[in-house]
Amino acid sequence: LNEFELIERFFTRAPRSASVRLGVGDDAALLAAAPGCEVVAAVDMLVGGRHFLVDTDPERLGHKALAVNLSDMAAMGATPRWALLALALPESDPAWLAAFARGFHALADAHGVDLVGGDTTRGPWNLCVTILGEVPAGAALTRGGARPGDDIYVSGALGDAALGVAALTGRVRLDDGAMAAACARLERPAPRVALGEALRGVASAAIDVSDGLVGDLGHVLERSRVGATVDLAAVPRSAALAGMLVGDARSLALDCVLAGGDDYELCFTAPPDAAARVGAIAARLALPLTPIGTITDADSGLIVHDEGGAPLAALPRAYDHFARGAT
Amino acid sequence: LNEFELIERFFTRAPRSASVRLGVGDDAALLAAAPGCEVVAAVDMLVGGRHFLVDTDPERLGHKALAVNLSDMAAMGATPRWALLALALPESDPAWLAAFARGFHALADAHGVDLVGGDTTRGPWNLCVTILGEVPAGAALTRGGARPGDDIYVSGALGDAALGVAALTGRVRLDDGAMAAACARLERPAPRVALGEALRGVASAAIDVSDGLVGDLGHVLERSRVGATVDLAAVPRSAALAGMLVGDARSLALDCVLAGGDDYELCFTAPPDAAARVGAIAARLALPLTPIGTITDADSGLIVHDEGGAPLAALPRAYDHFARGAT
Repeated sequence: LNEFELIERFFTRAPRSASVRLGVGDDAALLAAAPGCEVVAAVDMLVGGRHFLVDTDPERLGHKALAVNLSDMAAMGATPRWALLALALPESDPAWLAAFARGFHALADAHGVDLVGGDTTRGPWNLCVTILGEVPAGAALTRGGARPGDDIYVSGALGDAALGVAALTGRVRLDDGAMAAACARLERPAPRVALGEALRGVASAAIDVSDGLVGDLGHVLERSRVGATVDLAAVPRSAALAGMLVGDARSLALDCVLAGGDDYELCFTAPPDAAARVGAIAARLALPLTPIGTITDADSGLIVHDEGGAPLAALPRAYDHFARGAT
Repeated sequence: LNEFELIERFFTRAPRSASVRLGVGDDAALLAAAPGCEVVAAVDMLVGGRHFLVDTDPERLGHKALAVNLSDMAAMGATPRWALLALALPESDPAWLAAFARGFHALADAHGVDLVGGDTTRGPWNLCVTILGEVPAGAALTRGGARPGDDIYVSGALGDAALGVAALTGRVRLDDGAMAAACARLERPAPRVALGEALRGVASAAIDVSDGLVGDLGHVLERSRVGATVDLAAVPRSAALAGMLVGDARSLALDCVLAGGDDYELCFTAPPDAAARVGAIAARLALPLTPIGTITDADSGLIVHDEGGAPLAALPRAYDHFARGAT
């Protein structure tokens, strides 16, 4: 199959949404954004051997390539609508592409997202997804709105995706159940789109935890010009990580919980009087939303208190895509 | 410099346009599209060693990475507004990034485009640009509107970019002037954005010549369900290619003119009664717009007549990014 046949076969489907005036197959897509909304746009590039293992199940990879972008929409409180997919592959493998497209389209369908354009070429493994969404004008959640006194929350639990990487690369041994759970978090992240939408008008700031809590919360603090205190004991984590935190593997577990990327949970802030509304959202979505700390004045920086109340002397570093090796 | 410092230093600038409600530095950009317009979206991925030589002057590469995307906007008759840039680089090289950003921003500024988001990571050379633009609802030029009897036009001249590749790879020897002209076409394509905008309401269909005239006109014919006859003698080409077409290198010159990619001229169709308006646009833009043939019924396919009026027996193939080697 040549380039055009590949695109036709795997990536051209009738658009689900009437907002797609012209989809895959022309020089560009034509999209009708809803009146009164802003367009929300983000791009993520996943490199083979760095962001994913090249022998990853392609269906899961198709899911993940879109999921990480949906997570950016969730962090903005935006509704994802349209995606563009640029792929570089070492060879044109119809079986691989069929599985990748299946995973991508299944998650797209679950979120009402249409694939409206893309590019396919031979080259070293690279998956680049652009996601476009909508949010009512002025209602987006940004990193810049946190205020001293706000509560800090995270959704779900943190660290399992990084624990999966540690297990896959032999740095830790997990029992079968923990291994399966960690790999599921790593390979099939569930972007918190419904949470992001629900937090419009409730949260003061938000970010998705893609590079690790310390680094990502750090971005919120920097953009909001505030500080924070976080209680390590309050940060939600899986049973596997909870066990490791009180054992020999504490250092690794701390890295996973505080600096593990790829969980794609949301970290957000909200004023104390929003606590009941946050609780109601958690109940409605059946998703834990856990308060982990408080926004403070800027000059205090980020302080994480350990289980005994003492500040951690050194915080794990945020994920830097130029500093670390393959995950 | 780490990933975040790189982005801050080279790719974060104050937005030029008030339409950018939030630019680089959050989970996504927030963009206010103009009322009554559709959003136009396209992505192109350039792989090192395939779409560009990795020792290409980075400033020219920054120009080209954006130019190929602006050309997609031109082909839609759209006004480019916002770009997202995802980069994979083998190493973080501030001098390279500074030059690349200079080339990218200079062309962006010339077209009123704001860089509003991106991603930067270590990996094999890969440049992925997403371009977003606007067009009045219903006014976009597509590949699907050509009708029998329409004239077929191309802007500028075709084949010089491919001639530059042939010269750089030793398949042909050019004198200094021809070499400089060909390399300028290859490395600094001038996207025909103003032409695309001017052709709204005039052209019936349009495409940019990125994969070669035969292949790209073929896409128009397929989407419009029509055929075409093209007169080779009418296809505009440089003096260097004109000379080669009557000499020993005729075969290579034919390849360049009919199947050479990377020129980023527009090929468009218009009904005969639009000829005066097309002529006026050419005069206003100081850009040759040359009629090269006529749209026919679908069952006649694409026929190219040579200088003597005989149909060419075999047409050069369109560029296929999975079939050919590095350019």
